[in-house]
Amino acid sequence: MKIALLGCGTVGGGVLRICRTRVPELEVGRILTLPGELDDPLVTHDVEDILSDPSIECVVEAMGGIEPAHGFLVRALEAGKSVVTANKAVVAAHFAEFMELAAKHDVAFKIEATSGGGVPWIASIEKARRVDEVEQLSGILNGTSNYLIDSMERSSKGFEEALAEAQELGYAEADPSADIDGIDVANKAIISSTVAFGSLCRRDIPVLGIRHLTKPILDALEARGWSVRLLMRARKDSGRYAVCVEPVVISRASEEAHVPTNFNLATLVGQTVGELKFFGQGAGALPTGNAIVQDLLDVAAGEKPRYATEETLEWDPSLLGAAYLFATDAPAPAGARALLGADAAGKPLYLVFGEDPVHAGALYRAAADVDPTTFAASFSAEAAASLETLV
Amino acid sequence: MKIALLGCGTVGGGVLRICRTRVPELEVGRILTLPGELDDPLVTHDVEDILSDPSIECVVEAMGGIEPAHGFLVRALEAGKSVVTANKAVVAAHFAEFMELAAKHDVAFKIEATSGGGVPWIASIEKARRVDEVEQLSGILNGTSNYLIDSMERSSKGFEEALAEAQELGYAEADPSADIDGIDVANKAIISSTVAFGSLCRRDIPVLGIRHLTKPILDALEARGWSVRLLMRARKDSGRYAVCVEPVVISRASEEAHVPTNFNLATLVGQTVGELKFFGQGAGALPTGNAIVQDLLDVAAGEKPRYATEETLEWDPSLLGAAYLFATDAPAPAGARALLGADAAGKPLYLVFGEDPVHAGALYRAAADVDPTTFAASFSAEAAASLETLV
Repeated sequence: MKIALLGCGTVGGGVLRICRTRVPELEVGRILTLPGELDDPLVTHDVEDILSDPSIECVVEAMGGIEPAHGFLVRALEAGKSVVTANKAVVAAHFAEFMELAAKHDVAFKIEATSGGGVPWIASIEKARRVDEVEQLSGILNGTSNYLIDSMERSSKGFEEALAEAQELGYAEADPSADIDGIDVANKAIISSTVAFGSLCRRDIPVLGIRHLTKPILDALEARGWSVRLLMRARKDSGRYAVCVEPVVISRASEEAHVPTNFNLATLVGQTVGELKFFGQGAGALPTGNAIVQDLLDVAAGEKPRYATEETLEWDPSLLGAAYLFATDAPAPAGARALLGADAAGKPLYLVFGEDPVHAGALYRAAADVDPTTFAASFSAEAAASLETLV
Repeated sequence: MKIALLGCGTVGGGVLRICRTRVPELEVGRILTLPGELDDPLVTHDVEDILSDPSIECVVEAMGGIEPAHGFLVRALEAGKSVVTANKAVVAAHFAEFMELAAKHDVAFKIEATSGGGVPWIASIEKARRVDEVEQLSGILNGTSNYLIDSMERSSKGFEEALAEAQELGYAEADPSADIDGIDVANKAIISSTVAFGSLCRRDIPVLGIRHLTKPILDALEARGWSVRLLMRARKDSGRYAVCVEPVVISRASEEAHVPTNFNLATLVGQTVGELKFFGQGAGALPTGNAIVQDLLDVAAGEKPRYATEETLEWDPSLLGAAYLFATDAPAPAGARALLGADAAGKPLYLVFGEDPVHAGALYRAAADVDPTTFAASFSAEAAASLETLV
């Protein structure tokens, strides 16, 4: 199968290397780059050279961002080419449009590399659905935030110091907002939930990030046998669903608490298979390139997944109800009990029971209006079990 | 697709339930049981009723044991029927014969449920191989032994007490030998390695079990930041390979150290995708039934995997060289340094560097001739790193 690459940075370069060294049946026929980016006879700077070339059966998009990626992918699908993309932002924003075009033109639209890098996450959800209803998803799907928390836990580093180190090592961007504010995970959560639940996930899901996680907060959690990770959480039940992204206080006995550096760990729960977890590199040229090449092999074999293009389940955030922690110098959130005392820096740690992520977000914003360094996290069921002994 | 079940105990019953409730395209047409085992109009006690029925396209074997399962599967393949089996013992013993017959009669022979229960382990190895050389495997593939160790670590229970509890809860057989002596894992290791390395794995791999793991040994390990798990380990490099099963001393910071109860966690390392881990229920009616139904759906879709039937790689146990721990009242093993003192019960803990699993097994047997309660384990690379500070 002859393919073209739109973008040949880290991920595109990984695809090129894997195809050329390991998978000769995938022929890279053309590469779209910016002028001066890559010296290769296949390079073009004009997307028309690819869209109008009937020998190109499949387009790999690894440019990132919404435009011009969105326009290029629409035109590739309209030209009857299959698409494989690593671009979570454009898929989360235009999932329904892409799926409708792929169905209309009877081509494939594959998205493994959007979520979890080299972790076979999307394919595993799809496979589970052949037999099971998939009722729950959760997971660490952002390597940068995991790297920061892991680094703070293993050292005396504070957030800023850990972030500077991650930026130096290439694990965090110069502007880390998408990673630490949960935006990156939100895109992956929207994509994963749409695949898992067979219903288009809404775009405005509740999101909390880890920007205001401090070493004193981590230490206070650790003293109680807990850790914290930035997770996506999603649940479907009886025609309803909910999806959110937030820091979650977890037991140190859990698998999630031991995910090192920038690895990912994603969990699905099926009715017969139970809990399945998938661990691997969530980013990087070769792991993400591997995910794209796996998709390309499926496309070459004629696979054409079809995902939901309408929100058929009812949105019900109460499905994700949990206890919440608020670390804030603002007045106590409504319903709070200051059961956890304060962290080592003197910031009070409030506990609020029985919130859903939408209302918890409202409490967070009210507190952050007074204390912009407010941090909030939910408790996992396992960690919450030990709360009962504190109350 | 019309299928027949050979055996309808725990796993066969799970398959029946999943097919009837969730996957109508798989029609269970006949069920072979022992007299008095199941009251169902599809039941027969004569395998001929299945083998001679041309409408049965695929046979599911969940009887266990070598014979008569082996004979039934040979005859099913010869009759042009595909086979899906959960029986690790018969596959490890007759892998090459089954694969040759499946190829000769152009049918499928599928084995997902032999290794890791509901964990999609065999399929994940196969998928990784589409792009990568798979160079290493390791993992917890026996829920019973994991349950015992996890239970001993979380309580004051000794081995016998934890075993009695596991037997009561149905997590261990009345005769637990296959699980605690590593025989069950050895079968899974042979199967997994054959799939991963594309070379038939020899049957006589080195195996050590956990029968003589005691609470004082576990406590001594825990005091140094370690845990221990019964693992398979396998490696391929430059035309050579090695596979073994043994208790491995691991860091408490590792994912493996936090696998709860009877769950499994299996790891593969590919050249481009890096490390991938797969976690889930390693046994049970519905998880293992799910794995079988996944195989059946692949068979119905025309998938016919073909695995190696000859040992083309050279056996080289030095690939798995490691430091080893010996807990024994016998004289110090050759090359030992008694660096780790003794456990709380006074049993000396010897450290031997640079052994391979075959030679370590010889050292173990020499010690066990004197002290039959000798326990031996290798060190993971991560745990061994902290040994350097002790030497």
